[in-house]
Amino acid sequence: MSYELFVEVTRNGTVESRHFGAAVVCDFKGSVVKSWGDIESLVFPRSALKPMLAIHLVESGASDRFALNDAELSLACSSHQGEQMHQDLVASWLNRLGLTEDHLACGAVLPENTERAHQLLAAGQQGCRLHHNCSGKHTGFLTTALHLNMPLDKYHLLEHPLQQVSLDILSDLAVIDLRQYPIGIDGCGLPAPTMPLLQLGRAVARFANPEDLSDCRAQAIYRLHEAITNEPLYIAGHGSVVSELNEVTKGSVLAKTGAEGVLIAALPEQGLGIALKIADGSNRARSVALLAILDYLGMLSDEEKQQLQAHIVPTLVNSRGLAVGEIRPAASWLKKA
Amino acid sequence: MSYELFVEVTRNGTVESRHFGAAVVCDFKGSVVKSWGDIESLVFPRSALKPMLAIHLVESGASDRFALNDAELSLACSSHQGEQMHQDLVASWLNRLGLTEDHLACGAVLPENTERAHQLLAAGQQGCRLHHNCSGKHTGFLTTALHLNMPLDKYHLLEHPLQQVSLDILSDLAVIDLRQYPIGIDGCGLPAPTMPLLQLGRAVARFANPEDLSDCRAQAIYRLHEAITNEPLYIAGHGSVVSELNEVTKGSVLAKTGAEGVLIAALPEQGLGIALKIADGSNRARSVALLAILDYLGMLSDEEKQQLQAHIVPTLVNSRGLAVGEIRPAASWLKKA
Repeated sequence: MSYELFVEVTRNGTVESRHFGAAVVCDFKGSVVKSWGDIESLVFPRSALKPMLAIHLVESGASDRFALNDAELSLACSSHQGEQMHQDLVASWLNRLGLTEDHLACGAVLPENTERAHQLLAAGQQGCRLHHNCSGKHTGFLTTALHLNMPLDKYHLLEHPLQQVSLDILSDLAVIDLRQYPIGIDGCGLPAPTMPLLQLGRAVARFANPEDLSDCRAQAIYRLHEAITNEPLYIAGHGSVVSELNEVTKGSVLAKTGAEGVLIAALPEQGLGIALKIADGSNRARSVALLAILDYLGMLSDEEKQQLQAHIVPTLVNSRGLAVGEIRPAASWLKKA
Repeated sequence: MSYELFVEVTRNGTVESRHFGAAVVCDFKGSVVKSWGDIESLVFPRSALKPMLAIHLVESGASDRFALNDAELSLACSSHQGEQMHQDLVASWLNRLGLTEDHLACGAVLPENTERAHQLLAAGQQGCRLHHNCSGKHTGFLTTALHLNMPLDKYHLLEHPLQQVSLDILSDLAVIDLRQYPIGIDGCGLPAPTMPLLQLGRAVARFANPEDLSDCRAQAIYRLHEAITNEPLYIAGHGSVVSELNEVTKGSVLAKTGAEGVLIAALPEQGLGIALKIADGSNRARSVALLAILDYLGMLSDEEKQQLQAHIVPTLVNSRGLAVGEIRPAASWLKKA
């Protein structure tokens, strides 16, 4: 178990905190292009799997049957922030299926978007299941279950046929049998598989360029690339690094977060997959680390870097509105030889 | 720069995230009783300094002059959670000084206590300066400034005589000249000194048993011990590890948090000081680490451990209300030889 120092948090120029991590860049043939830290260590990819979990929704024909548009497919892959636009689209999609919020297995929570959460509270409301960052994924599962005449009840449990197919698809992408590894329970109640970080990188690379997968699976993945690229705000939300990376690079970098410091990025044009884990589970460090790796690989133009500057080296502002520090790639990391 | 694996976060029994740290246990003569990781590494103690910053309030005579009670002195040492009781006491104390919230240099924020924050929002209100976790400390500074006829304006700046005296007192406790080390700006606008972790441990030990300090300074520290012990809820708040440790141990363990993963504990009966830093700045790991060290040192009885169980190995519950993991001391750490 070894990690490298990835990210430093400074206060007035002095390092205050340090984030360690492991990361891998793979190509779609399975080769490791570059790695940092121990990439054999087991990770829970959590929500980083959502775009791969949405493959079944498309390849089963459920997406066509219910005429899902780009925004809905992007939302099926999302950890959305519970903004009004996300809540409305989950609600209307469920309604089209003849279902309601009560069919969702995820719990009721306040939106992750703070402004929206405060708005709700000020209006005397509470968080509901629609606001859960996973509600799009859950609606996707319900759509597939309806299409395949599977029981809608307990669709979140490991033994439900939907989750068994999900394990098959993920195993196909990761080129390992996920049933051989521990499986936990996620924040929203769904199974939370584990795999070595290396295998996650390989799966992301095969999602980036699926030409070695079955034709039907590859076509489903291309459809998801298109949907996410066309509707970047539905896969995360305003101000998020995932939506902005997607938008700024016009789909050349399709990133997805996972809880506890996981971040992946599929690079379709290069057929590359990047997977990283911040050891401590921190969210503030993962995006700084990913952008540093993308820059190291030469994947971002000067113009793109300028547009993403707030995510590349975020500024820390105190309660008086004064800039007192920053989050930056560690000075010792990613030195080009 | 080296850290040890202190704390693991598990999901259904498998480790998901890892927190690394450094820690030291010192006695009040300056000897290191035990240490983990590199204790020469520089830390920003942040709010962990508050009890030491309150010494001047007492030794200057300001506390007697304005008849501060135990609750107010405890609040002067606090990172409070902005509960109604904290807000009310800061307000009445300021009022007694003939001052208002506008004199506080800290910014307006929502309370750290989520329930209280949501209550305010639901009532159509916003956070104010009274809710800032540092408002008690700031009111303490204003009290001392009034007593010593110092300007109330800009009392938060490093060049203000109050902050210069603070640096002198902290240097006396840490047995080093803090002016030789970098000084940043804190979340509330006050100076944020740095020191090696070892020196922080020594300062905490001298706060625990101040018999080697001047008599006047020692008496002030004993007064603060008494106030914090008598009013544990004013130094933090309901459900916090600091207030509960203090209460459960009846003042045998006087702990104080600092932002970015810092936690200290003064053990007056043993004349020991503990200082620890979680490298990544995480708050969830620091209390688990401190309680593990206290247990390792044999400082907690079985009954105390039972009462503190929720802080010793916190359970992680998902949005469906299901226990899905825990935060625990790393299995590899603190093996007794």
